[in-house]
Amino acid sequence: MRHLIEPTDLSVDETERIIDLALDIIAHREKYSEACKGRKLATLFYEPSTRTRLSFTSAMMELGGNVIGFSDAASSSVSKGETVADTVRVIACFADIIAMRHFKEGAPLVASQYAGIPVINAGDGSHAHPTQTLTDLLTIKRELGRLDDLTIGFCGDLKFGRTVHSLIKALSRRTGIKVILIAPEELRLPDYIRHEVCDKYGVPTVEVRTMEEVMPELDILYMTRVQKERFLDEEEFERVKDSFVLTPEKLETAKKEMVVLHPLPRVNEITRAVDNDPRAAYFRQVENGKFVRMALIYTLLQWAGERKAAPTPHLTEAYDVNRLRCQNRRCISATEDVDQLFHEIDGEPGSYRCAYCEAKLRE
Amino acid sequence: MRHLIEPTDLSVDETERIIDLALDIIAHREKYSEACKGRKLATLFYEPSTRTRLSFTSAMMELGGNVIGFSDAASSSVSKGETVADTVRVIACFADIIAMRHFKEGAPLVASQYAGIPVINAGDGSHAHPTQTLTDLLTIKRELGRLDDLTIGFCGDLKFGRTVHSLIKALSRRTGIKVILIAPEELRLPDYIRHEVCDKYGVPTVEVRTMEEVMPELDILYMTRVQKERFLDEEEFERVKDSFVLTPEKLETAKKEMVVLHPLPRVNEITRAVDNDPRAAYFRQVENGKFVRMALIYTLLQWAGERKAAPTPHLTEAYDVNRLRCQNRRCISATEDVDQLFHEIDGEPGSYRCAYCEAKLRE
Amino acid sequence: MRHLIEPTDLSVDETERIIDLALDIIAHREKYSEACKGRKLATLFYEPSTRTRLSFTSAMMELGGNVIGFSDAASSSVSKGETVADTVRVIACFADIIAMRHFKEGAPLVASQYAGIPVINAGDGSHAHPTQTLTDLLTIKRELGRLDDLTIGFCGDLKFGRTVHSLIKALSRRTGIKVILIAPEELRLPDYIRHEVCDKYGVPTVEVRTMEEVMPELDILYMTRVQKERFLDEEEFERVKDSFVLTPEKLETAKKEMVVLHPLPRVNEITRAVDNDPRAAYFRQVENGKFVRMALIYTLLQWAGERKAAPTPHLTEAYDVNRLRCQNRRCISATEDVDQLFHEIDGEPGSYRCAYCEAKLRE
Repeated sequence: MRHLIEPTDLSVDETERIIDLALDIIAHREKYSEACKGRKLATLFYEPSTRTRLSFTSAMMELGGNVIGFSDAASSSVSKGETVADTVRVIACFADIIAMRHFKEGAPLVASQYAGIPVINAGDGSHAHPTQTLTDLLTIKRELGRLDDLTIGFCGDLKFGRTVHSLIKALSRRTGIKVILIAPEELRLPDYIRHEVCDKYGVPTVEVRTMEEVMPELDILYMTRVQKERFLDEEEFERVKDSFVLTPEKLETAKKEMVVLHPLPRVNEITRAVDNDPRAAYFRQVENGKFVRMALIYTLLQWAGERKAAPTPHLTEAYDVNRLRCQNRRCISATEDVDQLFHEIDGEPGSYRCAYCEAKLRE
Repeated sequence: MRHLIEPTDLSVDETERIIDLALDIIAHREKYSEACKGRKLATLFYEPSTRTRLSFTSAMMELGGNVIGFSDAASSSVSKGETVADTVRVIACFADIIAMRHFKEGAPLVASQYAGIPVINAGDGSHAHPTQTLTDLLTIKRELGRLDDLTIGFCGDLKFGRTVHSLIKALSRRTGIKVILIAPEELRLPDYIRHEVCDKYGVPTVEVRTMEEVMPELDILYMTRVQKERFLDEEEFERVKDSFVLTPEKLETAKKEMVVLHPLPRVNEITRAVDNDPRAAYFRQVENGKFVRMALIYTLLQWAGERKAAPTPHLTEAYDVNRLRCQNRRCISATEDVDQLFHEIDGEPGSYRCAYCEAKLRE
Repeated sequence: MRHLIEPTDLSVDETERIIDLALDIIAHREKYSEACKGRKLATLFYEPSTRTRLSFTSAMMELGGNVIGFSDAASSSVSKGETVADTVRVIACFADIIAMRHFKEGAPLVASQYAGIPVINAGDGSHAHPTQTLTDLLTIKRELGRLDDLTIGFCGDLKFGRTVHSLIKALSRRTGIKVILIAPEELRLPDYIRHEVCDKYGVPTVEVRTMEEVMPELDILYMTRVQKERFLDEEEFERVKDSFVLTPEKLETAKKEMVVLHPLPRVNEITRAVDNDPRAAYFRQVENGKFVRMALIYTLLQWAGERKAAPTPHLTEAYDVNRLRCQNRRCISATEDVDQLFHEIDGEPGSYRCAYCEAKLRE
């Protein structure tokens, strides 16, 4: 059984296959309008995320399928002490595929171990959100015609932004990628992403403090929100915040065919005046999210039917089992009775990452 | 692109066309059972309204379409600082038509400016609720066979009752209408409705204090709820409340073919014993609400497809832009970054109404 | 019009007919995939119950029908003072059949009096949950091939467990049933079930304190949760709790073809290690719940269409009307303006049961 828990659960080839399928769906929508007739998607949202939930919902409906589920744990009874493992075994009696959003990191991985049907991670805490990454890739492909030879600037909160981390991981498997990091000191990209991802795959990275100095170089400008609460020092926030707001003026030196992306919702880090610029692709990005989810649901159901696809990498790796204990309190392994699973970090003997939340642990 | 923000967005002819379509749907339901196949309605309910939401939902389903959405802002993420403008641009990637309920007056008008798909106002604060008005008109047509030459009594809270204001506006465009107002002093119809609507269109109005004195005259008795909280003086409430409760006894002098309407929910302003009277049409009214919403959704999607219908009047009027500022704190223009739009009131130079909430402003 | 308010609203023959239909649905699913096309189920859940709601929802979808509704009263507007009677008259304009969950005992019976469409009780307080009983019966039939000649052990909270009471009632109408009660002193089966049900129908009952002593005899072990809060004395809870936890060790002396049932959710009264035992049928039970609800919805809609089936027993019985007053504060008759309905208990002159909640009252 194949699942999508982290972006790298799909190989480069498989990712490309899903993006190509999304392009075919866009070109021939009527061909797919009954592709999942009689099938049901369960959207299990333990925390509300209207945009992501409705994207999955409309995707399944445009494939001719049905949708059941809940939109937050409070108004559901699933929070009454039932484990994720039991809940998904129940849901698997009602649906053919699950999209799970959870505040605990690693909950979708636990779900995938018990469901017996494909599980898609629709966001687990600050761990991963792989369908956003597929959305970003499809958008880049549609806007620029390629996924290689790209200079991409990431701007804003690069520390906590899981969409940034995941897109960097996904692009690092391509060729000719150059990453430019535009962030305040407090919100710099974590070192482990630079070392374990960029350095490992030979992706050059550059850090700058303003977007103006690199604007003319960029093929893609990936904007994210800078939240005041992330700063220890409010004065520091006030001093730097305007540097991370995109305006029509700052866009003036950008390439004509540059693309502005944003995972949304935005607050004020992109001014309304930018919306009418043809390079502003963030609302087109939303629609691409629907198409790529259609392609993903379709593909995972097909693989489940064939029963011949290799299982999701996660579940076959040689883990270190129940010897170490994850220290991340937001990890699902802290609250549910699951095996403690770790794998040693390449080239760092004695250092491990938790299989659920990817938190690092030193022996 | 045509929207329905206020009842008068539809001309008299268009209103009649939608009512006739509803009658055809009632007569030939199977003919429409796949009329909107493959289409999606988004029900964006920023505050709960189960009755209205399920009426829209069942309407779309009986047309063969699908429904996505949320049922209150709390359990959705749309309240997290995202503007209505951004939310509807996102939703337009997932759906073909929007029904929006919002606690802020004017929010659906903002939505209609950005969505790129038809927007139906499903109730915005105490401003407007145009599909209730269409429901009332269809019910009158079905019960009495006509929309002209009617004596209609409005009873209860005529001050805050938006359904009353809207129905008076809609009927004032017909001929032979006589309006009788039955309300306590505290809850009288606002002067501006009497002057700007009834007087302007030559609709005679009469004010009385009890329903008994006019009952034999009425073709329609439109009941609404009288809430204790609307009274400054509790004693006054206790003194008058029974005057605005309909009982079988009070109905005795009414015409045999009179019709009792109520927008529901009722609390105790119509006693249970009235329910079995054949003149009690308020539950039939609910079903008519579904049929008229079917006709409306069908028509707006058809107009959107033709792209030839004139745009909604609101968006083409010559507005006074960003010179005045609306003082109504429940107006969407108080919280969102939108243009301030006003139009001068006919015959009252220097007096304006806000385009979003219709609050009056003197220069 | 036929409804399902309590398990015994269906005769033994009718119950068997629904179970046989469920078996046919399981064997020939494609035959039923459009059986309810164009029909709508309303799921009116005044308190959240994700499992039951999604079971009904997926059941209706697998019959080709649509689903509307709400998942808790808080995020709906139905709690704003509207009576159950009015709400269901409104909902009946939108849907063809209702599944109602309510925190007030007897609310579905009130609904059935006003809806004009079939009403299914999806759980009303601690009163009844008849579709769980049908689920249990279908599971026993599928697992053991029969509904007669069974020794069934009920373990855990037999005092408040409505699923236990209902299953005992249903099985007492079969032949060759033997009931074994395994409960702590505080949570013993109420006397009235033993007397009015088991003794009346000649079902032998035995009370024991541990499951070990009866395990080899059992055809079915029906587990339920023992909640700490039910105990007056925490020490007593600590002393007994392990006696009511099922482990692989305790299963060792059980028959090879014994079946373990549980209405779920479980907390820790069945250890995870039991899940892999082939006798653990509680997840298969969940899927049976979906199939039996398909059979029930299908049957009630068919009966409603034929208009020839006898009405639900409840509504035709000779009641004692408005003479006595129910003292149960969780009964719907305490808050809504409904007739007080009682029937005298067989063989106990002067003792009555409320028609809504079945609470006993002495004249």
